[in-house]
Amino acid sequence: MMLARVAGTLVATDKEPSLEGLSFRVLSQLDVDNSETGTYVVAVDAIGAGVGEVVMYASGSSARQTEATDGRPCDAVIMAIVDTWEVNGEEQYRK
Amino acid sequence: MMLARVAGTLVATDKEPSLEGLSFRVLSQLDVDNSETGTYVVAVDAIGAGVGEVVMYASGSSARQTEATDGRPCDAVIMAIVDTWEVNGEEQYRK
Amino acid sequence: MMLARVAGTLVATDKEPSLEGLSFRVLSQLDVDNSETGTYVVAVDAIGAGVGEVVMYASGSSARQTEATDGRPCDAVIMAIVDTWEVNGEEQYRK
Amino acid sequence: MMLARVAGTLVATDKEPSLEGLSFRVLSQLDVDNSETGTYVVAVDAIGAGVGEVVMYASGSSARQTEATDGRPCDAVIMAIVDTWEVNGEEQYRK
Amino acid sequence: MMLARVAGTLVATDKEPSLEGLSFRVLSQLDVDNSETGTYVVAVDAIGAGVGEVVMYASGSSARQTEATDGRPCDAVIMAIVDTWEVNGEEQYRK
Repeated sequence: MMLARVAGTLVATDKEPSLEGLSFRVLSQLDVDNSETGTYVVAVDAIGAGVGEVVMYASGSSARQTEATDGRPCDAVIMAIVDTWEVNGEEQYRK
Repeated sequence: MMLARVAGTLVATDKEPSLEGLSFRVLSQLDVDNSETGTYVVAVDAIGAGVGEVVMYASGSSARQTEATDGRPCDAVIMAIVDTWEVNGEEQYRK
Repeated sequence: MMLARVAGTLVATDKEPSLEGLSFRVLSQLDVDNSETGTYVVAVDAIGAGVGEVVMYASGSSARQTEATDGRPCDAVIMAIVDTWEVNGEEQYRK
Repeated sequence: MMLARVAGTLVATDKEPSLEGLSFRVLSQLDVDNSETGTYVVAVDAIGAGVGEVVMYASGSSARQTEATDGRPCDAVIMAIVDTWEVNGEEQYRK
Repeated sequence: MMLARVAGTLVATDKEPSLEGLSFRVLSQLDVDNSETGTYVVAVDAIGAGVGEVVMYASGSSARQTEATDGRPCDAVIMAIVDTWEVNGEEQYRK
């Protein structure tokens, strides 16, 4: 999984019918030191993550292993809001 | 999912029989600020997106989760026409 | 899908039994302006594409959605010979 | 599979219900000479790997082929603790 | 599929039980002119490829389409030993 900050929202009215009701979020990928990498991806929000929150997202077929995304043309899903992580014994982020 | 502008069309008469009747679009990937990244991909159009429209596409096995692409050798599909997105509270694009 | 020119052939006698009888092609990836990117991949030929032809190939699990590749350890397949494509109203290639 | 050193841990309380009870590890990818590449990924730990250990991880749908991750939105899993590897007859790492 | 030279071996005693008995190989990816790209990957050997041999490997879910790797957390598999390939009519490698 990759780390990201929820940077914004996206609206798409005209879409595959199976995507009706899903929330799309624009994610800004984070490096392990909590800095932004400059890479963006659009993900479905399966857990209710607000703009500004730091999250983990899964890609590929694994992005369809939630009730919200099962069987839908979705290749990235927010599956957790991150509380904290540490690297080499140093905390890099705390919610 | 990634953002893209529909840049053009592609015709392929001699192809896997299961692809008969599908429309192929040449997509120019967009960055989050709506600028073109210079990366291109060919996707199946599952929703009727015209040239010039800004869309989202899904890749990999997720690209087969539409009626048009189910069970077909297709690894990228247009699954939504984008109305608008915003990043850090600023609108980046509006249809 | 990605665009490529069939650059050559590959022979492998000692292989997974399920791959028996398949044809392997060395593909030179094409950019959208029909120039070679310098990236190569080996793909199974599901449609009878000759050396020199411009084709589309699918990657990942989608590469197994043909009769030739179903259930086989193959992650890239030629699924169409391209007739023509255009970008921003200009033809980039014609067979 | 890729090689990595377990660099740290990650805690996420608010997550997809199916992920309850899984341990997340921050992995620092290793090059074949056992140096760090600077690339990080978050993986589920399926085998009890401690911080500092050198491991292999699998990505994509293959990351769901363990009892811990089956059917869950997880795209990277630690599936082995590495004892040793060698390249061109020279040992690069020993536990 | 990608081309590689089998550069070495890897031993991992403590691993997912389903991986018991599999052989891991360190692969050095080859470019189409048979030069090494400097990229390495660890793959399961499904066909008995020795160190030094030039092989093809498949990635992702396709790496599980062999008897050895079916249902296992493996994302790269050696599925063929290469005899020869040619590009633009010139032989690039012969076993």
